[in-house]
Amino acid sequence: SVSPHISNGSTSKPKKVMIIGGDGYCGWATALHLSNKNYEVAIVDSLVRRLFDHQLGLNSLTPIASIHDRIRRWKSLTGKTIQLHIGDICDFEFLTEAFKSFEPDAVVHFGEQRSAPYSMIDRSRAVFTQHNNVIGTLNVLFAIKEFSNECHLVKLGTMGEYGTPNIDIEEGYITITHNGRTDTLPYPKQASSFYHLSKVHDSNNIAFTCKAWGIRATDLNQGVVYGVRTDETEMHEELCNRLDYDGVFGTALNRFCVQAAVGHPLTVYGKGGQTRGYLDIRDTVQCVELAIANPANPGEFRVFNQFTEQFSVNDLAGLVTTAGKKLGLDVQTMSVPNPRVEAEEHYYNAKHTKLVELGLRPHLLSDSLLDSLLNFAVQFRDSVDKQQIMPSVSWKKIGAKPRTVAI
Amino acid sequence: SVSPHISNGSTSKPKKVMIIGGDGYCGWATALHLSNKNYEVAIVDSLVRRLFDHQLGLNSLTPIASIHDRIRRWKSLTGKTIQLHIGDICDFEFLTEAFKSFEPDAVVHFGEQRSAPYSMIDRSRAVFTQHNNVIGTLNVLFAIKEFSNECHLVKLGTMGEYGTPNIDIEEGYITITHNGRTDTLPYPKQASSFYHLSKVHDSNNIAFTCKAWGIRATDLNQGVVYGVRTDETEMHEELCNRLDYDGVFGTALNRFCVQAAVGHPLTVYGKGGQTRGYLDIRDTVQCVELAIANPANPGEFRVFNQFTEQFSVNDLAGLVTTAGKKLGLDVQTMSVPNPRVEAEEHYYNAKHTKLVELGLRPHLLSDSLLDSLLNFAVQFRDSVDKQQIMPSVSWKKIGAKPRTVAI
Ligand SMILES: NC(=O)c1ccc[n+]([C@@H]2O[C@H](COP(=O)([O-])OP(=O)(O)OC[C@H]3O[C@@H](n4cnc5c(N)ncnc54)[C@H](O)[C@@H]3O)[C@@H](O)[C@H]2O)c1
Ligand SMILES: NC(=O)c1ccc[n+]([C@@H]2O[C@H](COP(=O)([O-])OP(=O)(O)OC[C@H]3O[C@@H](n4cnc5c(N)ncnc54)[C@H](O)[C@@H]3O)[C@@H](O)[C@H]2O)c1
Repeated sequence: SVSPHISNGSTSKPKKVMIIGGDGYCGWATALHLSNKNYEVAIVDSLVRRLFDHQLGLNSLTPIASIHDRIRRWKSLTGKTIQLHIGDICDFEFLTEAFKSFEPDAVVHFGEQRSAPYSMIDRSRAVFTQHNNVIGTLNVLFAIKEFSNECHLVKLGTMGEYGTPNIDIEEGYITITHNGRTDTLPYPKQASSFYHLSKVHDSNNIAFTCKAWGIRATDLNQGVVYGVRTDETEMHEELCNRLDYDGVFGTALNRFCVQAAVGHPLTVYGKGGQTRGYLDIRDTVQCVELAIANPANPGEFRVFNQFTEQFSVNDLAGLVTTAGKKLGLDVQTMSVPNPRVEAEEHYYNAKHTKLVELGLRPHLLSDSLLDSLLNFAVQFRDSVDKQQIMPSVSWKKIGAKPRTVAI
Repeated sequence: SVSPHISNGSTSKPKKVMIIGGDGYCGWATALHLSNKNYEVAIVDSLVRRLFDHQLGLNSLTPIASIHDRIRRWKSLTGKTIQLHIGDICDFEFLTEAFKSFEPDAVVHFGEQRSAPYSMIDRSRAVFTQHNNVIGTLNVLFAIKEFSNECHLVKLGTMGEYGTPNIDIEEGYITITHNGRTDTLPYPKQASSFYHLSKVHDSNNIAFTCKAWGIRATDLNQGVVYGVRTDETEMHEELCNRLDYDGVFGTALNRFCVQAAVGHPLTVYGKGGQTRGYLDIRDTVQCVELAIANPANPGEFRVFNQFTEQFSVNDLAGLVTTAGKKLGLDVQTMSVPNPRVEAEEHYYNAKHTKLVELGLRPHLLSDSLLDSLLNFAVQFRDSVDKQQIMPSVSWKKIGAKPRTVAI
């Protein structure tokens, strides 16, 4: 089922793409996709995401091979080499070596602590999240300025940076007329966890370096990603992607499918009116490829809202219930006291046309995708640890003291 | 000339105010002022600002006593005790002890790396600035949540968070009507150095904790401070405040006065149309006192623009030239290639009514203040190191490598 279509210019030298966080959920799928499209790929990852699982006693639904085995398997299947640099991008010496030896044309930066609940466990995780994400990104910016001036930074942000304003959400900027004068300004941000805030900090830092140093950057304000299979990860079980269903790292739709598969009631937080943008992981890899193929100009801080459809939590629960019935699953829903601090009923209308204009052809959430994701969850349901399903982190109860006991 | 007027409620117990950064320029003046007004004051400071001077070979124009001597002198003159906690607020154990032993009713947080040029020297100073400021403030927020829930945070931000938008600058929030809907949102920020960005990050983090935890906070977006004398620091030479005139820590008007005093041409960066808000240090202490006396409500993130007048750099050069003539100084002006990345001609109209509504009676920049500041500079002119005057840090030339040689 692989179609190694060369979108990467058949005559010129293949573009070199560094994928920071390439062992993670989005990063692994993207690395394989770009390698398959004949980009020259290097993965940079500290593997700290695997450490979080060990420390919190969590597990991906799917068994995931080590990054070394993953890359060896890819090579033996396709003949394609993916470089591997294991280290922490907060360590600038390490990052320098990776930049100097690989000389990337583009850096796709997925390499952050990306769970809102994780950032709200305790003070030390809040501090870790902001330090890891903000300093890591600063280092990437300095590495680009110093060693690969022309390199295009494709940075993963989140739709959560915007919060839920009572006006339409634009893509990064908004034109404001005020007291008879007009300017186009960065869209106001209202993030609602230390994780989401770290992304706002990153966006502000990156925008400044575009202006001051002429960095070219694309900030992908990504929605919630769902699904697990991509063309490349399907090729072999050792290439299988991770699928998180726990209360800390699992995201809404993926969690609901696993809950439905094991007969756990769907965990709707509060009123369930929370509306967000969503996208299929097959669109994540497509969007990143489009951003790389159409780089920002020097000095341009370009912002794309990277999602394909909006759903409320109640919408998702309804869709999963219906799809479950077709598979003979009896899907119940429960209302869980909301562990987060967020509006549960609100206006939400976010623009997302720029990636479509570049050629994105969305995989909309269809019955068939839901069926296949549910089937996938059913296939792995014996390995589900039900203890991990309920939310265990509270926005209000977060304290200064370390929460070292198992969650 | 001291008038120890008790604004602090004569019947109730005196309020306890922790002053983080109390050994610095604004913090020292504020600590004495509040102590004089019968607040119970504790200074928290790592003294890192004095270390920067040693490392960069810089000096305050005025000789400054050690913090220990300062506090002893204050006690011997007034009988008033100022507590001293020496340590780094990024060290949460240290901060915890300070909070537990002092139990503040208000925390005034001046304790950050506050120079834009310093943050643009090299990668490690950029990273230090964001880490020191962002993590320090996170720790303060956690300490308040955990140990002094009712405590009012008064946080020093900067007018530089707003940048120079082409519309009026409001105090923290702006009401936007967009596609037929209306919301009041955080005012868009466009900071232009890693230092200014750190303040934007702080503001976003604090706003979130007000919402999520019910923290009460006042963000003082302060303009550029000028002057050196306050009622209390004038009482004895050992209480004298610092006055920075170098290219890294010196700020516009203070620098121009020292330049005029030593016959150095006034260093106007670029076209000199850069317009900012300014205030007298006597108003800094007044504003902070007003904020403490009128605390924000639980959950409220209150933003005040703390300045009294707007000037362009050319305006200031003109004022100092005129004032200098009266003192018989021949003041020249030179145009220096702008080391910063900033607009040199722009619209600027920033609101600053909220502190006036609370009772601020501004010391506007008058001939007499300029005369006295110039006289002060003349008095100390023999100790000026002219090598420190020209700007030495370039926004564009900042690199990844450590700049360990003397600037
Ligand atoms: N999954 C989603 O639904 C979603 C939605 C919006 C945005 N995003 C963003 O996309 C990116 C990837 O998300 P994901 O779901 O693949 O996360 P993930 O946790 O699965 O992957 C992140 C990877 O980055 C690595 N990493 C973290 N810090 C690092 C550091 N300092 N140095 C080197 N490597 C480091 C981790 O080890 C991990 O492999 C993140 O930035 C995330 O915020 C994800
Ligand atoms: N001076 C101005 O014109 C001006 C203008 C706008 C805003 N501000 C803000 O006001 C505040 C005070 O400014 P200033 O001019 O007095 O600066 P300053 O450098 O003179 O004082 C800051 C003090 O904080 C201390 N400090 C820094 N990091 C610390 C840490 N991690 N732990 C403990 N102590 C720490 C330093 O040792 C220093 O004594 C700053 O936050 C600054 O950004 C100042």
